[in-house]
Amino acid sequence: MTQSHMAREVAEIPDAVARFLDQSRDAVGRAAEGLRARDPAVLTTVARGSSDHAATYLKYAIELQAGIPVASVGPSVASIYKRPLRLERAGCIGISQSGQSPDIVDMIRAAGDGGALSIAITNHADSPMAQSSAHCLALHAGEEKSVAATKTFVNSVVAGLSLLAEWREDGDLRAAVAALPDAFAQSVAMDWSPLSDRLARAASAYVLGRGPGNAIANEVALKLKETSGTHAEAYSSAEVLHGPSAIVQANFPVLALGVEDAALPHVVATAERLAEQGADVFLTGADAKGATRLPAVSGLHPMVAPLVLIGSFYACVEGLARRRGFDPDTPPHLRKVTETV
Amino acid sequence: MTQSHMAREVAEIPDAVARFLDQSRDAVGRAAEGLRARDPAVLTTVARGSSDHAATYLKYAIELQAGIPVASVGPSVASIYKRPLRLERAGCIGISQSGQSPDIVDMIRAAGDGGALSIAITNHADSPMAQSSAHCLALHAGEEKSVAATKTFVNSVVAGLSLLAEWREDGDLRAAVAALPDAFAQSVAMDWSPLSDRLARAASAYVLGRGPGNAIANEVALKLKETSGTHAEAYSSAEVLHGPSAIVQANFPVLALGVEDAALPHVVATAERLAEQGADVFLTGADAKGATRLPAVSGLHPMVAPLVLIGSFYACVEGLARRRGFDPDTPPHLRKVTETV
Repeated sequence: MTQSHMAREVAEIPDAVARFLDQSRDAVGRAAEGLRARDPAVLTTVARGSSDHAATYLKYAIELQAGIPVASVGPSVASIYKRPLRLERAGCIGISQSGQSPDIVDMIRAAGDGGALSIAITNHADSPMAQSSAHCLALHAGEEKSVAATKTFVNSVVAGLSLLAEWREDGDLRAAVAALPDAFAQSVAMDWSPLSDRLARAASAYVLGRGPGNAIANEVALKLKETSGTHAEAYSSAEVLHGPSAIVQANFPVLALGVEDAALPHVVATAERLAEQGADVFLTGADAKGATRLPAVSGLHPMVAPLVLIGSFYACVEGLARRRGFDPDTPPHLRKVTETV
Repeated sequence: MTQSHMAREVAEIPDAVARFLDQSRDAVGRAAEGLRARDPAVLTTVARGSSDHAATYLKYAIELQAGIPVASVGPSVASIYKRPLRLERAGCIGISQSGQSPDIVDMIRAAGDGGALSIAITNHADSPMAQSSAHCLALHAGEEKSVAATKTFVNSVVAGLSLLAEWREDGDLRAAVAALPDAFAQSVAMDWSPLSDRLARAASAYVLGRGPGNAIANEVALKLKETSGTHAEAYSSAEVLHGPSAIVQANFPVLALGVEDAALPHVVATAERLAEQGADVFLTGADAKGATRLPAVSGLHPMVAPLVLIGSFYACVEGLARRRGFDPDTPPHLRKVTETV
C-alpha cells in the first residue's frame, strides 16, 4: 500500500518543528521586540479552521503567561460588516496556512489600519496575508499535500509559543519550545489503538480539554469530522456539564485530554462523571475510574503538553480514516485552500 | 395534558422583556455611565452554557456597534490557573442566570481586582456574582422552572443590548430594543413545524449563523442537545466550509439562520452549497435553492433580528422534545444550577 500524504506529513512533524525553530529565530525576535514596544492592552486573533484552533491555543497561552486578554475576532467584522475596530493599543495575530482567504486578509489589513501591530503566521511568506502585515512568521513546514492540516497546525502553535517566550523573555517556556522536536518524535510513535478501535464504529463523539487543551480538543474534533466522517464535537471539561452532557448516553465515546497541569483533577472528575453516565471514556495523562488510559509523553511544561498530544492523535486518526473507508488525504467536499468572505 | 414549564416560560418572553425594560432603566443608565467614564480599550465576558451564548451575541453587537474588541475569557483562567489579567482599561461583563457558579464568581472578582469595571447580568440580584460586581443588571425574568433557560437567555441579551444602546447613545438601537416585546409576541407564534418534522428523526444536525446570528446558532444547537437528544452543532456559515462540511452527506439536517443584514447573501450561498451536497436545509429570512424557508419576523434592526428568531425556535423545540419522548423541563443528567470550578 502506498503511504498517504497525511501519514508522511505526520511523521515529518519533529523535523518541521526543528526547521521552524532554526530558520525563524530572527523573525520571531523582531516581532517580539515589536510587541514589547507596543505593550498591548489586548491582542486579537483572526483565523479559520485548524488555524483558528492554533489561535485558541495561543489565546490561553498568552492569557495565562502574559496576563493580557485575547479576543478572537470574526473575520466578518471587517469583510462583511466593514466595521473598523479601535485597536490603538493592540496586537493582531493572523494565522492561515495559505495566507489567502480574502476574509482573513481583509481583517488583518483592517487591524493594521485600526492601529494594531499586525503579525502574520503562515506557511506562505509571499501570501497576501503576509504582505498585509507588519511582521510575518513563516512556518517553514514544507509543502503540505494532505487537505487535512497537520504539520502546519503544529508549527502555527510553535510559532506563537516562540513569539510569546521571546516577548516575555520566559526562559522556562523557551526551553520547553526548544525540546519540542524530541517530544513530538515520541508523541507520533504512541499507540492510541484502543481509541481507534472504539471510534471505528462511532457516529458521534465528544472531545474534552481544559485551558490550552481546549484548543487541542477542537482540533481533534475537526479532524475526526474531516477525515473519518464522525460527528465529533469539542467542549471544555467544565462547559460540557452545563448542558451538552444531556446527550451522553450508554457507550457514547468521549476522549478527555488531560495533561500534568492545575486543571488535571477537574478533567479527571468530568471523565469519571461521564463514565458513570455510561460513556466509553478515554483519558490521557492520568487514571480515572471507568476510563481507558491512553499513553502520553510525560514531564512536559504545561504550556506545551497539550500541543504534544496532537502528534499521537494525528498518527491515530490517519489509520482510523482508512479503517472507516475514507482517503485521509482527500476529505469529501473539501479543498486545500478554502476562500470565504 | 399539563403544559410544560418550558411552554409557559416561552409564552412569557414578551412580558419578561417588557418587565426588564421597565424595571432596569436606572441600573442600565448607571452601568452605561460607568462604561463611558472608563472608555475601555477592551471588554471581557465570562459565562457558561446558554449565558455564554448571550455573551457571544453581545461580543458581535459591541464589536460591530462600538468598534471595541471583546474577549471571552475562560473562567478557568482565574478559578484554576489563578492568573490575574491586566485589565486597567477594560470592562468585564459576567452573565449567569443563577449568579452562583464558583468559577464565574471567581473570574468576575478577579477582573475587578485586575482593574476592570465589572458588570453582572443575572436573574438573582442577591447572588454572589452580583455582590462581587460594581454594577448589576437584574433580569426581572421571574422564576424559571425549566432546566433549559429560555426567558432568562432572551433577557440576558436584551440587558446587554440595552446597555450598549445607552452607553453609545444609539437612538436606532434604543428604538429597536423598545420594540422587542412586540417582535417576540409575533416570533413565539410562528410555525416552524417543517423543521420539527425533519428533526423528529435526526441523530445529528448543523445550525448555522453569521455575526450575532452565530450566537443564536449556538443557543439553538445546545437546546437541541438538552431537550431533544439530538447531536446538533453550531458553526458560522463561513467556518462550516473550512472542514466541518465533510460530514454533510445526503439528508443531513441543516438549519441556517438568515436575517436581513449584510451577511444574508453569504448565509444563502452556504445554504445552497450544502443543499447541493444533499443536505436537508431549512433557512430563515430568505429563499434559497433546494432549501425550505421558515417564517420570521421581518423589518427588524439587524442587531436584534437574530435574537428574535430564538422565540420561534424555543416554541418549536418544546414540542419537538415531547415528540422525541423527552420531558422538556428535565433534560437527562442536568440540574438548573451547575456549579463547576
